[in-house]
Amino acid sequence: MRLSDSNVAIAGLGLIGASLGMALRGQCKRVIGVARRHEVCAEALRVGAADRVFSDIAEAAARADIVVLATPVRHIVRSVPEVAPHMQQGALLFDLGSTKRQVVEAMGRIPEGIRAVGGHPMCGKEKGGIENAVRDLFEGAVFALCPTARTDDEAMNVAYEIASAVGAKPLMLDAETHDRAVATISHLPYLLAALLVQTERVAIMTDATAHRLAASGFRDTSRLAASDVEMMLDILLTNSDSITHALDLFEQQLSGVRQMLHQPDALRQWMERAQAHRREMFT
Amino acid sequence: MRLSDSNVAIAGLGLIGASLGMALRGQCKRVIGVARRHEVCAEALRVGAADRVFSDIAEAAARADIVVLATPVRHIVRSVPEVAPHMQQGALLFDLGSTKRQVVEAMGRIPEGIRAVGGHPMCGKEKGGIENAVRDLFEGAVFALCPTARTDDEAMNVAYEIASAVGAKPLMLDAETHDRAVATISHLPYLLAALLVQTERVAIMTDATAHRLAASGFRDTSRLAASDVEMMLDILLTNSDSITHALDLFEQQLSGVRQMLHQPDALRQWMERAQAHRREMFT
Repeated sequence: MRLSDSNVAIAGLGLIGASLGMALRGQCKRVIGVARRHEVCAEALRVGAADRVFSDIAEAAARADIVVLATPVRHIVRSVPEVAPHMQQGALLFDLGSTKRQVVEAMGRIPEGIRAVGGHPMCGKEKGGIENAVRDLFEGAVFALCPTARTDDEAMNVAYEIASAVGAKPLMLDAETHDRAVATISHLPYLLAALLVQTERVAIMTDATAHRLAASGFRDTSRLAASDVEMMLDILLTNSDSITHALDLFEQQLSGVRQMLHQPDALRQWMERAQAHRREMFT
Repeated sequence: MRLSDSNVAIAGLGLIGASLGMALRGQCKRVIGVARRHEVCAEALRVGAADRVFSDIAEAAARADIVVLATPVRHIVRSVPEVAPHMQQGALLFDLGSTKRQVVEAMGRIPEGIRAVGGHPMCGKEKGGIENAVRDLFEGAVFALCPTARTDDEAMNVAYEIASAVGAKPLMLDAETHDRAVATISHLPYLLAALLVQTERVAIMTDATAHRLAASGFRDTSRLAASDVEMMLDILLTNSDSITHALDLFEQQLSGVRQMLHQPDALRQWMERAQAHRREMFT
């Protein structure tokens, strides 16, 4: 199986699915878009996110060599066993969900003879929907690829091809490791942003001054609080144990820093270490 | 006293002080830059942050109608009683420190006959120093102005003139209210950014995967962790009680959200409220 000879069905034409369609068009035989709503199907054709469209996933799956699920994670988990029986022998089931354990487990239970790999491109935008889709969304992003009980070499090779074709950097890792890592690097930042906004909301109930003083620091730190709720809710609910662990580590740091507010030397050292680590991560 | 007829001495030619000098030049009689290091003085003349320079604050203060202290907050608090005795009768002592209670208290104890107003422009950059100073730093920012026991109408009018002259929006409020508000809107975001970075630093000690998956969400949420340590340290140490209060509110939210990781409906509602509030703050 090669990407260039494949019909690729993409189920879910939101920001991520539609952007994938744009990026893959011309690099595979045909991109088949799948969305329940006809307006979204029409828009996908208009903006060049698909060569043809279906509103029924089963019909599209039967015609595809590669089926990509690009809906919120809990929907992907439910779709995997529904879609697989409609797929051709040897075809590849792939997904773009933001957590991987539950997806990979579901993929491991589909009929033998259907291949499956879990995927997660580390990119996105605060505003979802096909109207925000762009061809270069994946450019330079790490694209996590997680093996399942239905992954053979050929399946992983094609997954690598897809990730590379859209300009991303494929990185193979197991679903468990992936989910622990994104809890720290992605879900914790979202929660801190939302918690910051909620704290401000409560604080201004007694005095609205803070609201008038908000500047770029608050804006950037809270940016992720504006993320798509449906997508983030599924992420949090399918990764709650890793997130709880990340919150434990966070609270240890928090209780330390509370003490340090009265220990100038310790506080300075802690701040310098944070500054150095941040600068090392992003120059 | 009018700004246009005044000699303005600015003590401290870092990002904020040098940017103020650039923005005020041409709108007052003369900008007198004050910095201990000769290289900084030379740079101030070169980049147009001052018309002339002194390394001794007492000499500059004696020649000025307005003296602006633009060093880290604890240094400002120490400078106020040292500088005031060198100032001319009727002159205005002003500052740009990021917390206001301790500054305003110190200003209230200077000799009568010297005027004083506390100031805080709500702007900045992650990278400090005169090399990052820009003329338009204050453009559109809220500029908090806090009365002291040495503030009369004339003093406040000149403070308004300064804020307006640099393109900022003056906002008069008392130091107590200011410090409570910035604890929520500015110091809490910094701490969350630093805590996020420190949590990641500890998490990757057992598994470095998170580090490889860092993307724009982590980058933006952690941006403030790269802030200037000297400046932020003084801020935290001079506002620890308001910050502790903000952290209390934050921890209440945090313990709520931990529960909600197992309550989908409550979690969704909480996330929607955060999203709506964020969108209302920044469109």
